[in-house]
Amino acid sequence: MRGDTFDMVIFGGAGDLATRKLIPALYYLNKDGQIQGSSRILCTGRSAMDQAAMRDHAAGACRQYVRDSDLDDAALRAFLERLDYVKLSADDAGDFAQLADQLNRQDPDRCRVFFLATAPKLFATICEGLAGAGLNTPQARVVLEKPLGSDLQSATEINQRVGAVFSEDQVFRIDHYLGKETVQNLMALRFGNALFEPLWRRTNINDVQITLAEQVGLEGRAGYYEHTGAMRDMIQNHLLQLLCIVAMEPPTATEANAVRDEKLKVLRALKPLSGQAAIRDTVRGQYRAGAINGQAVPGYLDEDGVEPDSRTETFAVIKAHIDTWRWAGVPFFLRTGKRLAERRAEIVINFRPVPLNIFGADLGDLPANRLVIRLQPDEGVSLNVLAKQPGPAMRLKPVSLRLDFARTFKVRPLDAYERLLTEVIRGNLTLFMRNDELEAAWRWVDPILAAWKDDGDRPRGYNAGSWGPSSAVSLLAREGFAWHEEVEDGP
Amino acid sequence: MRGDTFDMVIFGGAGDLATRKLIPALYYLNKDGQIQGSSRILCTGRSAMDQAAMRDHAAGACRQYVRDSDLDDAALRAFLERLDYVKLSADDAGDFAQLADQLNRQDPDRCRVFFLATAPKLFATICEGLAGAGLNTPQARVVLEKPLGSDLQSATEINQRVGAVFSEDQVFRIDHYLGKETVQNLMALRFGNALFEPLWRRTNINDVQITLAEQVGLEGRAGYYEHTGAMRDMIQNHLLQLLCIVAMEPPTATEANAVRDEKLKVLRALKPLSGQAAIRDTVRGQYRAGAINGQAVPGYLDEDGVEPDSRTETFAVIKAHIDTWRWAGVPFFLRTGKRLAERRAEIVINFRPVPLNIFGADLGDLPANRLVIRLQPDEGVSLNVLAKQPGPAMRLKPVSLRLDFARTFKVRPLDAYERLLTEVIRGNLTLFMRNDELEAAWRWVDPILAAWKDDGDRPRGYNAGSWGPSSAVSLLAREGFAWHEEVEDGP
Repeated sequence: MRGDTFDMVIFGGAGDLATRKLIPALYYLNKDGQIQGSSRILCTGRSAMDQAAMRDHAAGACRQYVRDSDLDDAALRAFLERLDYVKLSADDAGDFAQLADQLNRQDPDRCRVFFLATAPKLFATICEGLAGAGLNTPQARVVLEKPLGSDLQSATEINQRVGAVFSEDQVFRIDHYLGKETVQNLMALRFGNALFEPLWRRTNINDVQITLAEQVGLEGRAGYYEHTGAMRDMIQNHLLQLLCIVAMEPPTATEANAVRDEKLKVLRALKPLSGQAAIRDTVRGQYRAGAINGQAVPGYLDEDGVEPDSRTETFAVIKAHIDTWRWAGVPFFLRTGKRLAERRAEIVINFRPVPLNIFGADLGDLPANRLVIRLQPDEGVSLNVLAKQPGPAMRLKPVSLRLDFARTFKVRPLDAYERLLTEVIRGNLTLFMRNDELEAAWRWVDPILAAWKDDGDRPRGYNAGSWGPSSAVSLLAREGFAWHEEVEDGP
Repeated sequence: MRGDTFDMVIFGGAGDLATRKLIPALYYLNKDGQIQGSSRILCTGRSAMDQAAMRDHAAGACRQYVRDSDLDDAALRAFLERLDYVKLSADDAGDFAQLADQLNRQDPDRCRVFFLATAPKLFATICEGLAGAGLNTPQARVVLEKPLGSDLQSATEINQRVGAVFSEDQVFRIDHYLGKETVQNLMALRFGNALFEPLWRRTNINDVQITLAEQVGLEGRAGYYEHTGAMRDMIQNHLLQLLCIVAMEPPTATEANAVRDEKLKVLRALKPLSGQAAIRDTVRGQYRAGAINGQAVPGYLDEDGVEPDSRTETFAVIKAHIDTWRWAGVPFFLRTGKRLAERRAEIVINFRPVPLNIFGADLGDLPANRLVIRLQPDEGVSLNVLAKQPGPAMRLKPVSLRLDFARTFKVRPLDAYERLLTEVIRGNLTLFMRNDELEAAWRWVDPILAAWKDDGDRPRGYNAGSWGPSSAVSLLAREGFAWHEEVEDGP
């Protein structure tokens, strides 16, 4: 981004995502000197709003979502200077012509970023509107936010209609988990160290667990969530993307298509799950009333806007397999849910146990090594090893070798959106999903959704504040696996 | 040891080793309740000394070598109660008869430990004296301290003469490095974790460096050191034992002969070095005047008791190779010396670099992973990995995953002699060298010593307080290796 002047147009510019994430991220980037020269940020929306009102709104967003210590008046004023508002209806060609007019008043060849922070049903319409006004220039980039469709068909339709007016390398599909520092670090660990690669395969790895656990409930978004559920909201995108980063073969470079080719190969190698197999290897749950951090919370069916007989899953576990030489037979357990016991996002690599305990039977089974890559709440990596407990006897004890990013590096971690917006403006597609990846993910997910729909059973109930229904435990236990529940501490 | 009552006879019981190490270790063991019932400790020596004088001497040793916080009057009194003194000349059968008499006054079937803290030329004589007095009972154990001979012939002679009166499983040859907590932990790390074994071979390891660096000089022992030198004093025993623990195949159990069989295989697989090859692949040094911690110290040739034209090496480096499938082609650099820049004992495993830097040429060569097992000054393990530096760009930075035993476990580490005495009384031979190991080590060392003797060159001079002669650096550098000089810290 450094050195590049750009115009960014945020569709849905006063909406939820823009307010909570994009405007604060842009404030940080501007404060850090990453937004150059006369770069502008135009927010659009259907409501009438003038520049002053938009700047007021943005100032409010910054005050709420930027850390107090990072907020200063001069920086805020400088940032707001770049902001403007344009009223625009997605289906009004005249509005697009006006937008084009305003953009063309400045250098028409500068980099333009169109960030579509809108409902996905508008993605194609907006792109066509941009094309109609001649805004699909080679310097244009389109950013799409999840949900990117609700099944393979709708996703393909979006890809095709967007692809008709923008080339694939102009399309930035955001999965914000790919912008997280720890996910970047997982790439660094895997491919910057010769240590891990020889171990990173079925010979040495017992199972992989990817958990994205939320404590929050619907947060007032029943209208969205009722038709989405945990699978479409979390697994189809975030969890599968993390799975790709864990499981992919070493790419030849970190260049976008080299990485995306490898991720695509993983998605295409996912063993298909459908019908009875899908029922057997998955668990759906729906939270009941319970307590989060000691506070009583209602059950899903009692939330505002939820159908009284809703079958929407608020929790899901999938036992996935990747049919490659590297991973054949190694289960990847994907788990996500709302109203769970903790807010925790982590990737757990469970290594196989030692083949032989040479230290004698009285030590019992030696616990296996484990690598935990934490994404939330604090980012870090820890490696569990057995060490000898000091003393005359050979007693082994698990200890953690830890890397805590905040403590080690002592810098403010970049928010995922800061990183991703930077990458958009740099034109670097590595951290964004390609059309074929998106479609491959839906191709694997659709039959599972179909099996769930056909299934006579409702999602299993679980108490808010628990770790999901007990079948999520038994799914693993019946084959001798177990969830990594506790962040263990060294002795 | 718990539950066993024993008599320990220390030959050279008022000597240097007994005073500095054995008596303090026995004090600790007694204080920790590890010495049972009416167990006695008899010190012998040629000088006349009564029980009271011996106890005075031992009390002085404890006051000097036990940490103040661990010394209390009641514990000291209880310990001294067990002590007695017997005057004994190694060549006087009557003295041995008297010793037998005194021992037999108590239960003659109790476990007896004869610790020979004497010059090695007395080992055989003392054992024969014990046998002459009928003290080579099945319950007897003999402990021998280094130096165990000065070449293959003298070591074999000791083994044979001792072996004529004691069976091999009654003979405990001490190498106190095997009693160190970290060496035990190296076993635990290698064989208690499935992580390391797949990496522990030529495919992944570039080179291994074992350093035992001292800051001290002769400490008044010129008479001993002039005829010993770094090779006999340190490499033939300590460094080769550490090399065995690093390099051995997984034993089937931690039982003594299972471990010693594997160590023996390593010693026998050492690629022989002799003649010009020995000169090419080794470096000898001798310290000149210099400064240690800012204090001027004399050169070796100016030390009291050193011949003015002495060629004794006070520093040595050997590039060793182990001719096995696991290690072929991987150099093991052994380094030791007196009057070096630091007191540091460590084993460094340098892994191979990544085969391909996928992060782009502008990151330069990625530093390879490194596992450092520190034995001195503080015991610990650290694993160097590359991690991503937080921020928008993919910059990799080496960080250490650390395991600091003292901080992690918060217990007083056992001194090597406490552990080893415990093992002797338990009758556990795992941490002691077998006769064939000792001979195999000398068999490898002898031709190198012969090559050095035949060589026209003197040892290279190096300044006290340095890291040895520059040829110690160039030996590695000419094949692209480099010493691990700095204990690197995380950022």
